[in-house]
Amino acid sequence: MIAEQLMVQSAIGNWTRTIQRVSSTFKVLPEAKFYETVAPGRNRLIYLLGHLTASNDGMLPLLGFGPRLYPAFEETFLHRPDRSVDPLPSPAELLRCWVEVTNRLQDHFTSLTPSEWVQRHQAMTDEDYVKDPGRNRFAVLLNRTSHASFHLGQIILATK
Amino acid sequence: MIAEQLMVQSAIGNWTRTIQRVSSTFKVLPEAKFYETVAPGRNRLIYLLGHLTASNDGMLPLLGFGPRLYPAFEETFLHRPDRSVDPLPSPAELLRCWVEVTNRLQDHFTSLTPSEWVQRHQAMTDEDYVKDPGRNRFAVLLNRTSHASFHLGQIILATK
Repeated sequence: MIAEQLMVQSAIGNWTRTIQRVSSTFKVLPEAKFYETVAPGRNRLIYLLGHLTASNDGMLPLLGFGPRLYPAFEETFLHRPDRSVDPLPSPAELLRCWVEVTNRLQDHFTSLTPSEWVQRHQAMTDEDYVKDPGRNRFAVLLNRTSHASFHLGQIILATK
Repeated sequence: MIAEQLMVQSAIGNWTRTIQRVSSTFKVLPEAKFYETVAPGRNRLIYLLGHLTASNDGMLPLLGFGPRLYPAFEETFLHRPDRSVDPLPSPAELLRCWVEVTNRLQDHFTSLTPSEWVQRHQAMTDEDYVKDPGRNRFAVLLNRTSHASFHLGQIILATK
């Protein structure tokens, strides 16, 4: 296998492992636990699940895969802090959205060629891309994997 | 620039941003804060800095760059839990080790070619690599970036 294919495989694998750890953590979580914070005064688990769902959902338009599935989540879980929107979706509903968004992304990820991975993402103009070709789909994937790991580290504190 | 070069650039960039966030967080931290936990009953900040230093240090032999700079850290910060080794290195000493290890890695990272990145890491035999070429230097870099992000998410809880 050539280098660029191995790199794509590694990056998708790293993303998938991270997402699966989030999924498996929340899937066995009793409903009441969703409303606990990761540390005193910090975000609640339900907010972090919504935040990661909204962040992943935003990858669909950013990577050119289509519109967000849950556009209202952008305001609730990205623009506003925890405890400022009431009521939130239920844990069961949020988990269904999480699974749907991550499955949708996974389908797109596995269909891209290596050269499609390094094409510019949709928030950039062609001119910007010429100046900075590092801002491409692949970079977005790595960056969002780190973002998910960052919050997974917090989630684990409240659930293990 | 061709795909594999862009991918290496993105992966090193993502690593570097994560490491720099850890560095800048600890560099301005008052010494007493190093002994606080990230959440009640969880690891202390000083242990997590040691843990990430030991993890990064282990990338030197794993990626074929030479022996660990601080082999004793493996026992203290990887094999044993927090509060089981006394005394720990001081915050200032640990920060010096952290900077030295990360600088050493950075020098090696920027000198590898894309095909060297996808070569097997040193914990595998050639036979294993033929069976599973996904276990290569590049995969290690992505995985360790996620590991650092995971703990950075925890560190931020105690420092912001």
